[in-house]
Amino acid sequence: MSGNDFGRRILAGERLALARLLTRLENGDPEGQAALAELYPHTGRAHLVGITGPPGVGKSTLVNSLARHYRQPPDGAEPRTVAVVAVDPTSPFTGGAILGDRIRMRDLAGDPGVFIRSMATRGALGGLARATTQVIQALDAAGYKAILVETVGAGQSEVDIASAAHTTVVVEAPGMGDEVQAIKAGLLEIADVLVVNKSDLPGAENTLRALRGMLGLAHPVRRGANSRSAGLAASDAPIWITPILQPVAGSGGGIPALLEAIDSHRVYLAATGELAGKERARAAAELEAGLREALMHGWRAAAPDGAFEAALERVLAREIAPLAAVKMLVAGEFARRRP
Amino acid sequence: MSGNDFGRRILAGERLALARLLTRLENGDPEGQAALAELYPHTGRAHLVGITGPPGVGKSTLVNSLARHYRQPPDGAEPRTVAVVAVDPTSPFTGGAILGDRIRMRDLAGDPGVFIRSMATRGALGGLARATTQVIQALDAAGYKAILVETVGAGQSEVDIASAAHTTVVVEAPGMGDEVQAIKAGLLEIADVLVVNKSDLPGAENTLRALRGMLGLAHPVRRGANSRSAGLAASDAPIWITPILQPVAGSGGGIPALLEAIDSHRVYLAATGELAGKERARAAAELEAGLREALMHGWRAAAPDGAFEAALERVLAREIAPLAAVKMLVAGEFARRRP
Repeated sequence: MSGNDFGRRILAGERLALARLLTRLENGDPEGQAALAELYPHTGRAHLVGITGPPGVGKSTLVNSLARHYRQPPDGAEPRTVAVVAVDPTSPFTGGAILGDRIRMRDLAGDPGVFIRSMATRGALGGLARATTQVIQALDAAGYKAILVETVGAGQSEVDIASAAHTTVVVEAPGMGDEVQAIKAGLLEIADVLVVNKSDLPGAENTLRALRGMLGLAHPVRRGANSRSAGLAASDAPIWITPILQPVAGSGGGIPALLEAIDSHRVYLAATGELAGKERARAAAELEAGLREALMHGWRAAAPDGAFEAALERVLAREIAPLAAVKMLVAGEFARRRP
Repeated sequence: MSGNDFGRRILAGERLALARLLTRLENGDPEGQAALAELYPHTGRAHLVGITGPPGVGKSTLVNSLARHYRQPPDGAEPRTVAVVAVDPTSPFTGGAILGDRIRMRDLAGDPGVFIRSMATRGALGGLARATTQVIQALDAAGYKAILVETVGAGQSEVDIASAAHTTVVVEAPGMGDEVQAIKAGLLEIADVLVVNKSDLPGAENTLRALRGMLGLAHPVRRGANSRSAGLAASDAPIWITPILQPVAGSGGGIPALLEAIDSHRVYLAATGELAGKERARAAAELEAGLREALMHGWRAAAPDGAFEAALERVLAREIAPLAAVKMLVAGEFARRRP
């Protein structure tokens, strides 16, 4: 299947072609790249929603509920197509992403307006971030109106992936003693919408109080706005006040309010020009990452055989420091292995 | 203070010089690099111990207890010098690493055989990993016998930092329902020693049972070894069986057993040649990361003014895909801004 075929078939709505392209993008396959280059002009229409939080807070259930509400909105609104990208760490113990896919699919299977994809943490971090970016672009070009990117974890990488979205939803849950995990994980500062999940569990009130207090600290200049109503404050220059929502994910309660907050954040981004700023930052980061990759690739192709290994041996012998070895490599020394 | 001074003063045991060098390394300062190049031949003697796990499991308390036992071993053994490197996500809400430093210092302050350093997640991931590597090298050269690298979190970056150590201790705690966080976070497969902390809390037995089951799954070929005694199994070709320990961190109970397991893993690494393999992998990763950085730096210096921005504009206009733009940049197109 050539790049041309992928592009044409995906734009025509063929799910199988899309699924195959995503696999190629995950594997870094050159044909996948060619197809993506063709699809790229069709990107830029989806609302990218990142959903992140510590393990165990119920993100997957929340994402499933959200996806259902995109498809079956209340009050007779128009259903929107939705794609879910779940970025899961792979574990040899549980089967990781694949198992997750099956569990998810059961719930939303058969709806052609929903596309679900789990991505595993394979090898290098940079690889995962790049593959995720490309998978999102393919889904965007394929016409999904909302793309929910779910990332497990408290790690910088997952935070980076989630915060590359237009709207970032941070999910927290009561429990773990008096400690609010999102703080330690540095998640709070990237939240556009904050969700306290499982709010029927004991401790929910304490968690809420702690989060409210910390958001207050984070936004000391918000006094001018109507501090009682979170979300999009009406004024000449709109201000976004991070709302704290408490859906009970299992029962679907509060999910419409969450969807409303997400939509309202998109309106805010467009109204203030922040959307364009986010797009620019994201494209610049992608260009730079690609450039680094290409430069390394070019260096490997041009470097004399064994140069890297010769440098490595001298570092291991502690004759030279790693950065000194790098300078020598770039300067073209280590032209051949020492005999 | 020149590179020469740093090196001489640090090798002479001056703590202030060491602290200053670490700050320079964190900031990517060139003088810091020069000093590190001088210190590099003195590295390679410390035992690097990574300690990681989800937020809230009590890693900091455990690390403090461990540090005390390195200094005051039972049975009249020789005290060993110890450095603690805590890699904390920065949060504008809590002050992050700095606050942590103060709390820690109170406990172990005044002991010249202990050096504690907290590092914040500043800016790019790559930057933090590189700075952490360099800080560890400086502490190693300064003569600390054990370097405990504590990383918060379930993220790939933190996992990478921890698993670059010789011995990786993964810390888990009971709670969070029936979910063992370490699995979701992909931490279990990097554990050389597994700690179930807070084992006086309810649920500890369930957590232990789950972890034992999963470790069994992870190591199906271990039947030949004595499956009852974890740690270093006595045989011609030593096998390492990941021990599961349950110290109660607050009271210090079980810490000597943890220290013994850590020491025993070091013996195992040396006996099997795995230590040399780990050192090689780590040096290769450091060389490659440095090379990527240097190539990007060189490209920026040589590229025509505005080339990157011109490429970015065309990507934002969706005229070309990011990877196509990268190829054009590497090929030297975008020689000047289009009028």
